[in-house]
Amino acid sequence: MTPVQQRQRTAPAELEARLRAIGPERYHHRHPFHQLMHEGKLTRGQLQAWALNRYYYQSVIPIKDAIILSRSEDAAFRRAWRKRIIDHDGDGTHPGGVEKWIALAEATGLGREQVTSLRGILPGVYYAVNAYLDLVSKHSFLEAVASSLTELFSRDLIALRIDRLRQHYPWLSGGLAYFDARLTQAPEDAQFALSWVIEHARTPTEQELALGALRAKCDILWAQLDALYFAYVSPGWPPPGAFHPGAESVSN
Amino acid sequence: MTPVQQRQRTAPAELEARLRAIGPERYHHRHPFHQLMHEGKLTRGQLQAWALNRYYYQSVIPIKDAIILSRSEDAAFRRAWRKRIIDHDGDGTHPGGVEKWIALAEATGLGREQVTSLRGILPGVYYAVNAYLDLVSKHSFLEAVASSLTELFSRDLIALRIDRLRQHYPWLSGGLAYFDARLTQAPEDAQFALSWVIEHARTPTEQELALGALRAKCDILWAQLDALYFAYVSPGWPPPGAFHPGAESVSN
Repeated sequence: MTPVQQRQRTAPAELEARLRAIGPERYHHRHPFHQLMHEGKLTRGQLQAWALNRYYYQSVIPIKDAIILSRSEDAAFRRAWRKRIIDHDGDGTHPGGVEKWIALAEATGLGREQVTSLRGILPGVYYAVNAYLDLVSKHSFLEAVASSLTELFSRDLIALRIDRLRQHYPWLSGGLAYFDARLTQAPEDAQFALSWVIEHARTPTEQELALGALRAKCDILWAQLDALYFAYVSPGWPPPGAFHPGAESVSN
Repeated sequence: MTPVQQRQRTAPAELEARLRAIGPERYHHRHPFHQLMHEGKLTRGQLQAWALNRYYYQSVIPIKDAIILSRSEDAAFRRAWRKRIIDHDGDGTHPGGVEKWIALAEATGLGREQVTSLRGILPGVYYAVNAYLDLVSKHSFLEAVASSLTELFSRDLIALRIDRLRQHYPWLSGGLAYFDARLTQAPEDAQFALSWVIEHARTPTEQELALGALRAKCDILWAQLDALYFAYVSPGWPPPGAFHPGAESVSN
């Protein structure tokens, strides 16, 4: 191995450190929309817009995981990954994450049909979520798996959110089952994906692809909140055809 | 024909009127970013961000048209449509629209390589433009053609823009060849596509698909300006990794 290759090659521990370092830089816990949420400064109408739009993201998660499942030729990988689909779609008896998200949206005052129809979601959110499907469909399998690693960063954000939503929006407390479940699901899933990525991203090129996929996924999460902030906080201009909080919306 | 079908069926003239009515409702001439541009209120740095980001849109237009070309089984249609690819890619001697857009971006003070590398474009713009490729790839051929009909609305916007850019940003005047060409190209293209859509959208369902595709295309244009406004006007928060106007940027 030449000195140049030694310099370029990233050791597994260093790759893990570089993946983890993307969180403080780009993960959406830093986004001003979340900061307003956690300070109790969002109105009920703004929380409705958030729940409605993020429903689209939640609804494609099991589809995203099925795409990843369909691309693996390794039965052991598929057995591990299919847990995610069950977590989100449920088992027919116990509700999964998508159903729990609908319950959260209902707790904001939206109707189930209004949420599941996808009417009024922001085009910017729609495009960002579809970009996630593109990423896991069209990029390398390594990138598809690495893009899930935002779950490395989600536990702290979810724990904070549960606490602050209960504190600032007590009328939402009955709708937080989604987040309670994610407190344990996300770290388990992240640990499996992290081990897999570190094992399979061996060359410098592969490692850069994995890092780039995690950054790209952070961008996808961030762009959804940019669109929500622009439409519903400041300047507060929902595009033609998008959801407008109704007269029943009350300031928190 | 039953009375119900008579009510649902849209006559060609009415379809044309409904397509044209989408412009005043949803076309991006109404967007606040364009209004600031035409009032001379954008800084050079904001115009750079616009030119840089819209370059990605311009660069995929010939790819979008090649996808449409690839989906037509009618040689006469293909002969008419291929003009668009020549308009944007040039003939190897005379520059096409993409090259002219680079000249516009250079007139704002950006370097050619900075523009064509696509470094720093907003994720929100990237996703919206990719949504256009999705629309022409995955939806019906009728919808793919109908999505081009925003060109029905572009001539007035381009004429206004040429006038206002010359007036408010005289240092940009050497870079306006793109818009000069579009003044004649866009109406020719729009007339062909409009006639084709009216001839081929015969059932109420087909007509609704055509109308929906034109609305979806308006959303794609609008979302790009939402992302630009949010990142570079107000609140003025470019996401991690996006273009920041450099120290050389001067207020207009």
